[in-house]
Amino acid sequence: MNEQKKDQPASKGRKAINPAVARHRLRNKSRGLSAADYVKGILEGDRILLSQAITLVESTRSEHQQLAQTIIEQCLPHRKPSVRIGITGSPGVGKSTFIEALGQLLINRGHQLAVLAIDPSSQVSKGSILGDKTRMTSLSTAQQAFIRPSPAGRSLGGVAQKTRATILLCEAAGFDTLLIETVGVGQSETIVHSMVDLFLLLLLPGAGDELQGIKRGIVEMADIVAINKADGDRLSLAKRTKREYRNALHLFPPKESQWTPQVVLCSALENKGITNIWDLVDQYVEKGRGSGYFQERRRRQAHYWLYEEINEGLKTLFFEQESIKNRLPEIEKAVLEGQLSATQAAQMLLEMFVSGRPKD
Amino acid sequence: MNEQKKDQPASKGRKAINPAVARHRLRNKSRGLSAADYVKGILEGDRILLSQAITLVESTRSEHQQLAQTIIEQCLPHRKPSVRIGITGSPGVGKSTFIEALGQLLINRGHQLAVLAIDPSSQVSKGSILGDKTRMTSLSTAQQAFIRPSPAGRSLGGVAQKTRATILLCEAAGFDTLLIETVGVGQSETIVHSMVDLFLLLLLPGAGDELQGIKRGIVEMADIVAINKADGDRLSLAKRTKREYRNALHLFPPKESQWTPQVVLCSALENKGITNIWDLVDQYVEKGRGSGYFQERRRRQAHYWLYEEINEGLKTLFFEQESIKNRLPEIEKAVLEGQLSATQAAQMLLEMFVSGRPKD
Repeated sequence: MNEQKKDQPASKGRKAINPAVARHRLRNKSRGLSAADYVKGILEGDRILLSQAITLVESTRSEHQQLAQTIIEQCLPHRKPSVRIGITGSPGVGKSTFIEALGQLLINRGHQLAVLAIDPSSQVSKGSILGDKTRMTSLSTAQQAFIRPSPAGRSLGGVAQKTRATILLCEAAGFDTLLIETVGVGQSETIVHSMVDLFLLLLLPGAGDELQGIKRGIVEMADIVAINKADGDRLSLAKRTKREYRNALHLFPPKESQWTPQVVLCSALENKGITNIWDLVDQYVEKGRGSGYFQERRRRQAHYWLYEEINEGLKTLFFEQESIKNRLPEIEKAVLEGQLSATQAAQMLLEMFVSGRPKD
Repeated sequence: MNEQKKDQPASKGRKAINPAVARHRLRNKSRGLSAADYVKGILEGDRILLSQAITLVESTRSEHQQLAQTIIEQCLPHRKPSVRIGITGSPGVGKSTFIEALGQLLINRGHQLAVLAIDPSSQVSKGSILGDKTRMTSLSTAQQAFIRPSPAGRSLGGVAQKTRATILLCEAAGFDTLLIETVGVGQSETIVHSMVDLFLLLLLPGAGDELQGIKRGIVEMADIVAINKADGDRLSLAKRTKREYRNALHLFPPKESQWTPQVVLCSALENKGITNIWDLVDQYVEKGRGSGYFQERRRRQAHYWLYEEINEGLKTLFFEQESIKNRLPEIEKAVLEGQLSATQAAQMLLEMFVSGRPKD
């Protein structure tokens, strides 16, 4: 494995680098590319500059962050209309094989495909569910596909912010279809749900969702439930699972999208049922765009993220202020021991925050 | 119904007012009671002063709020050890009758009982699920019981803060058992759960929790599930419901309290099964106090509320600052229309907030 220097653009593999790229990289090292250079490259579909811009997004250095923000703002007006699809399912459900099969279909139909990931475990391991490119061998070499592993981050909120920025950059680079993969076991699905147009849940034949480690709320979020590995001996079990989920989904209140969640069978391995799933996605998008729900959902997501980011930013301002850092431990202790009410303690701290210095 | 002036202490009913009370009220009107006066009265178990202090807690006037905070802080060290019980269930499950029956048992056993309520609907209607005192005729006239309707508030967070302050005041006034009632249909259960020692869910015989309008998360929170109205023709149905819930609860992971949630039958109307429920509460409390879980849970709740109040306070500071108020609408519009990213917009606004003036 190549050792990579921190905050350096990701390795571009073993291919020979063309002269233009070499110049870019040289300038980047010597005096840095300007935001305009990046924007121009991204809008022209330059994968390497797109990759480097995403690396800037993921960097913790403030000059990288500033440059990334400028690039994003300049890219915003040039984004292609896109469909953002969240794909979730437990480990072992066959997500990689599914994405390979679906991705191949999309490429054959002329789509430009970006595959991103949100992986809560990457916060700890700095690893990534998409880090191992051997998982998607055909897609990772396809010219029409762009695969980017999950960014590491100190918080799921931070990872989400970076993923949203990456979505915007990919759309500016001409990708019209985005698959955002996550593991269906934690909070990350809610976050992915709030940045996609359609949410697809992969399940295994047989086991109930609780046994599959899928939280109930995730089933409720799904627009399409696909029972994967519906092949060979598992076919009849898969059919029964399909019936069960179809019945269960009918118990939920109708969605605002007016879309009835669909339960379908597929076998990514045998490449069966994938076309049917994409037809459903097409129907969903057509219906949602026609009714205006699609646009409204994106507006609401933007609203949600604006207020989330304000909230996160306020907390950072507060908890990183010196006076708060100094006094919080003792005040928190007094609250935990019942000597001070939470309300009084919060008021004291907020006054310190406003005045910017410790209260005597 | 009596018209009550805003921010005035609640009506004390039609009973003749004794001279001491009349003096209190006069002083309150002419020059106001001091915090020390309130604290002394509360610690002596003076219901009227307790009631007035709660009214100060609920008042939106800042001088009332300040006085209330001082009273609470001075009361804190004098609180009695207490058991705080959350009681939830859909409308029609018989909560009032149940609380009447349980309350009567508690009074007979020498407990001092306070019944409070959190009612999300009161935010809109300014009404209250406990507003109609005729619902609890025997308790509302008992000397050992104190019934206080749900405070109205602009937000559930505000209502929660007022309810927690009321709990502290009641404990200082000598109430050792607190029942906090809520309707099992919304967010308010989560809030009640985070301020009680034990969570009791009332259900009807027969219907599944989804049909009863009970969200699944609420069942998971319950320490005791009581199937009420287990009488007459409904008894066998109630028994089946009990079995179903007992089986369902076994599927959940064990609770940190090491307490296995109990499912029991009762009929508040026929006063059956109530003693059994209280015995379970006693067991729960004894076990929890012995293991230290009880104390640990209260510490965690205090921690939770401290950070909740800081967060709410930060938002208030931010959204009420003039520069933010002035610029937020146009910036939000730009985000919703996709002209500005949520991240960039939040950064701009946070910079305005810090500098305290509109950015040019």
